[in-house]
Amino acid sequence: MKAGGAKKNKQVTIGDIPHVGPGTPVGEWFRRYWLVVSTLEDLRDIPRELKILGEELVLFRDLRGQLGLLGLHCPHRGTSLEYGDIEERGIRCSYHGWLFDVGGQCLEQPAEPKESVFHRKVKHLSYPVREQGGLIFAYLGPNPDQPPPLPRYSCLVDRGGQRQIEPVRCNDYNWFNFYENSADPSHICILHRHTGYGEQSWGDQFFSYRDMPSFDYVETDYGMKVVMTKPGPTAGTEFVDTMTLALPSIIQVGDTEFVHARVDAVKLMTEGSQCEHVLFLTPNDDERFTIFTVNYYTGSDANFFDKLQRMRATEVPEEEVKEYDRRKYMPFKGNVRQEDIMTQSTQGLLGERDERLATSDRGVIMFRRIVREAIVTALQGGCPKGIVPKGKEKEIVYFDSFTGVRKNGR
Amino acid sequence: MKAGGAKKNKQVTIGDIPHVGPGTPVGEWFRRYWLVVSTLEDLRDIPRELKILGEELVLFRDLRGQLGLLGLHCPHRGTSLEYGDIEERGIRCSYHGWLFDVGGQCLEQPAEPKESVFHRKVKHLSYPVREQGGLIFAYLGPNPDQPPPLPRYSCLVDRGGQRQIEPVRCNDYNWFNFYENSADPSHICILHRHTGYGEQSWGDQFFSYRDMPSFDYVETDYGMKVVMTKPGPTAGTEFVDTMTLALPSIIQVGDTEFVHARVDAVKLMTEGSQCEHVLFLTPNDDERFTIFTVNYYTGSDANFFDKLQRMRATEVPEEEVKEYDRRKYMPFKGNVRQEDIMTQSTQGLLGERDERLATSDRGVIMFRRIVREAIVTALQGGCPKGIVPKGKEKEIVYFDSFTGVRKNGR
Amino acid sequence: MKAGGAKKNKQVTIGDIPHVGPGTPVGEWFRRYWLVVSTLEDLRDIPRELKILGEELVLFRDLRGQLGLLGLHCPHRGTSLEYGDIEERGIRCSYHGWLFDVGGQCLEQPAEPKESVFHRKVKHLSYPVREQGGLIFAYLGPNPDQPPPLPRYSCLVDRGGQRQIEPVRCNDYNWFNFYENSADPSHICILHRHTGYGEQSWGDQFFSYRDMPSFDYVETDYGMKVVMTKPGPTAGTEFVDTMTLALPSIIQVGDTEFVHARVDAVKLMTEGSQCEHVLFLTPNDDERFTIFTVNYYTGSDANFFDKLQRMRATEVPEEEVKEYDRRKYMPFKGNVRQEDIMTQSTQGLLGERDERLATSDRGVIMFRRIVREAIVTALQGGCPKGIVPKGKEKEIVYFDSFTGVRKNGR
Repeated sequence: MKAGGAKKNKQVTIGDIPHVGPGTPVGEWFRRYWLVVSTLEDLRDIPRELKILGEELVLFRDLRGQLGLLGLHCPHRGTSLEYGDIEERGIRCSYHGWLFDVGGQCLEQPAEPKESVFHRKVKHLSYPVREQGGLIFAYLGPNPDQPPPLPRYSCLVDRGGQRQIEPVRCNDYNWFNFYENSADPSHICILHRHTGYGEQSWGDQFFSYRDMPSFDYVETDYGMKVVMTKPGPTAGTEFVDTMTLALPSIIQVGDTEFVHARVDAVKLMTEGSQCEHVLFLTPNDDERFTIFTVNYYTGSDANFFDKLQRMRATEVPEEEVKEYDRRKYMPFKGNVRQEDIMTQSTQGLLGERDERLATSDRGVIMFRRIVREAIVTALQGGCPKGIVPKGKEKEIVYFDSFTGVRKNGR
Repeated sequence: MKAGGAKKNKQVTIGDIPHVGPGTPVGEWFRRYWLVVSTLEDLRDIPRELKILGEELVLFRDLRGQLGLLGLHCPHRGTSLEYGDIEERGIRCSYHGWLFDVGGQCLEQPAEPKESVFHRKVKHLSYPVREQGGLIFAYLGPNPDQPPPLPRYSCLVDRGGQRQIEPVRCNDYNWFNFYENSADPSHICILHRHTGYGEQSWGDQFFSYRDMPSFDYVETDYGMKVVMTKPGPTAGTEFVDTMTLALPSIIQVGDTEFVHARVDAVKLMTEGSQCEHVLFLTPNDDERFTIFTVNYYTGSDANFFDKLQRMRATEVPEEEVKEYDRRKYMPFKGNVRQEDIMTQSTQGLLGERDERLATSDRGVIMFRRIVREAIVTALQGGCPKGIVPKGKEKEIVYFDSFTGVRKNGR
Repeated sequence: MKAGGAKKNKQVTIGDIPHVGPGTPVGEWFRRYWLVVSTLEDLRDIPRELKILGEELVLFRDLRGQLGLLGLHCPHRGTSLEYGDIEERGIRCSYHGWLFDVGGQCLEQPAEPKESVFHRKVKHLSYPVREQGGLIFAYLGPNPDQPPPLPRYSCLVDRGGQRQIEPVRCNDYNWFNFYENSADPSHICILHRHTGYGEQSWGDQFFSYRDMPSFDYVETDYGMKVVMTKPGPTAGTEFVDTMTLALPSIIQVGDTEFVHARVDAVKLMTEGSQCEHVLFLTPNDDERFTIFTVNYYTGSDANFFDKLQRMRATEVPEEEVKEYDRRKYMPFKGNVRQEDIMTQSTQGLLGERDERLATSDRGVIMFRRIVREAIVTALQGGCPKGIVPKGKEKEIVYFDSFTGVRKNGR
């Protein structure tokens, strides 16, 4: 484990980025943000063991409805609170019955003398937890009593649209392989040419392998935008497809409704994207991360999510797998998510793998710089990109991921 | 691996206790005692690979009936003797036919010249082995020719009672989590409140969660006694329940017949416990240990063991496991042994886990001191608790685990 | 990983021999030879991931038929080329479509500007590959453009006989345990006494446990010969059985046709062995190796391989396995290959295991010296045994493994 402290005044390298454990530069940086730890739906009436940024934790809701996120092991003798009893006022360890409230305060120690007040001195590790739009966020940072404001992410605020939270996905490779893949749009035309992103898609072969769109990379307040353009249907217009990377680990995709729900071209031209497809990534440790996916739709189609789901279901790997083919990730071609998993899980760790970066990697290069600067800012006590500044706590945080037709150069 | 030598004059810490490999302080301490390595019944006519205190060994009985415990790997070229042939005079390695007797002496080397006496110079690692009451003990210590006397444990000596050896249990966590759990009687009232130890048990709610017995901890010649008491049925009497921890790793439970065989209260009051329920723990390495369990019954009920077994069979986890519950140790509530496994296997290693000890942990604190003192005594060449002193070799070793009704303060 | 450089002027110990990774003395030595990496038959129309000497590689044949062996991970961003597309001119990475020819030269980078010549600067790790007699050889050494000549092994050159390549075998223990087993012929009479090599075999109880043959060890240009002899059928003759160990990791067995095909004794006496049974070993890493087995038969029996296969099929472990027997390698007695696997996989690593070598180990001792000398020669820039010397590239490499009857002392 690398010491965050010792790194403060040194340059953070890209080799630091994959490592999220306590005390690492990136671990410290992540601990300045609210991170998604569960969907509301996945937290039932039993305690849930979670690993977040390399820490073993237990998430539960007491019988009053309050959410708690505590250290997994009882501070008394170490038994796992995953097997504790949930009660009105908190969670009770099975071994000796110590009761903790959602703030980590020990309330009871049944084996101690009746007059004992020792329990008052026992405060277990606990982190603030908040619910927003069906997701449960936690702040694992240094000031649990004064966490930064939880951003009001537009896809999680009720604004008259429909929201869908997809089943949670867990992947067993490093989080940053997934994250920086979105700063690299050229792979869409190549890796994903067999899928919804192939030449057959909207926008007159927008993602053609032979005639790729133009790629622009724009640094923003919250991170970076990737803007892809092609000549539009009429003079003076262009097709635009935008993807957003918001720190610390959020991706918003603009073209989901056109690529995966096949919304028709007229709509594209007149209205642009009406679906926010947002992925919140949470590193479990250096080898695993979890993806929480939210769709927020503001258009008029009451059956939009049904349509999206039906179309997704048709995007299955079409490859025939030969009987002598023992390759682990076969088949993958034909499904964007399986194509990504094959690609990213075999890359190895950033900083450990050899790389030869090219012109088309300038998005990746820019994004790594932005991430490193945010880490350094956090380590130096500043306010990194992605933290809501003072005075703006109540504003809805919109990530611009416009996809549609607009006048040239807008 | 920690060097036992270097530790001799330093303080042994509780963080040393879990580690049993060769050269560690606790490994050296354990190597002063006879340890159970198998039941007689589990040793058949094939060699058995065993791991004891981190050492790879092979246990066998030659065709003359002699027991041998040798290093697993043939000293010639390393092949496993687990696949050797058992013969009249010993075990023969499959690779080149070297024959070893139970004392490790090489008797034959078929590929050597007929006149060769090289075999006489080859003495393989071997440890003394003894049988007692259906258990096989081995001494892995430094003086194999002069081992200490094998204690005549009362439960293993035929004294007119009935003996039962239970099926051997293997657990994959550290041995000391199991052992010191017995120095901590308050967990019985809390963790085990759902089982035979709940409020419904003998002794007028002896183990009530709300009204626990008094706990006393008494240092003894062989280790420590835990004495639990509650007011008795008549004036001037008390219910007593005793549990014994005998070094290096033996536990005797006094209340088994009342808790798990539900022997009636009249018997309890007039006769006290007549069943010695004894657990011999053997660490395989730092992550695994084996439990050899003996019941010795001196009462008059010819069907006592049947009754015990039938009652045990009813103590199954009663919890309903919800279909979304993926927790590893579910269900556990309702069976003392599964409750213990869940609790102890999630604690982590002593010395590595954080702890906040309380008043009710004074038994644990005292016991850790007793164990550490015994380790230091052994490392300094003394005779630690649990070794039979000279001149007492023939005496039966009784561990006082009285459970029953007695006059106050006896 | 041990530094080969630092070892150059020091003595290479037997403890170095098992370790084959890049930079180790033995790894460097192996990288002076052509090694078998696949049979021709096992390379289909999909890329194959291989681990050779601890290196992750991908083997493929482009659509023109050229063989390529490249580094597994694309040099661009690390994705596995095992999932690349095979094309006319090479293999194309799935992620960004970089195309590499069999020499590792990058030919295309579709996401780069059309005028870009950056691909010309990208040369991926590649190793020379050659096909010979149904096996694919690769040279992983320091001068890929000037590899040593690929020896024309007699069993792989068409000389009017019949060739059979057996199914490839993979074992999960160290390669040298298998290799040096052949320098130790006495084990045949002992370990293999239950099988084809038992007393019932050809040559009047040639491999009798009670009356072993004489063993001679002869250092040769390519490595070492083991010569076993017994008195022949008539005065002045002897039965001879020869086994060859050729560096770096080849074994030729002379008696296969007599032991496993039970060719009759008349033939043995008049013609001697007509079947070359050759094993090419390739270490995958320190824990695994692969065996490529070739039979080359020059006799007149058109059904020889059928006969060999039928006889092999009868050599199954005859042992009854008792229902309480949980030993991993049971049953093994009765099948030479399973007897070897049990023995060798339980030995542990040379240099880490304890050993007591005896007179009958002088073949092993000599062979370890020959291997160490070859390693030192290679590290010092010389031409170790097993490399074809200049001017002899076109000669067929015969390993003398005569088995049959000859005049005494020939």
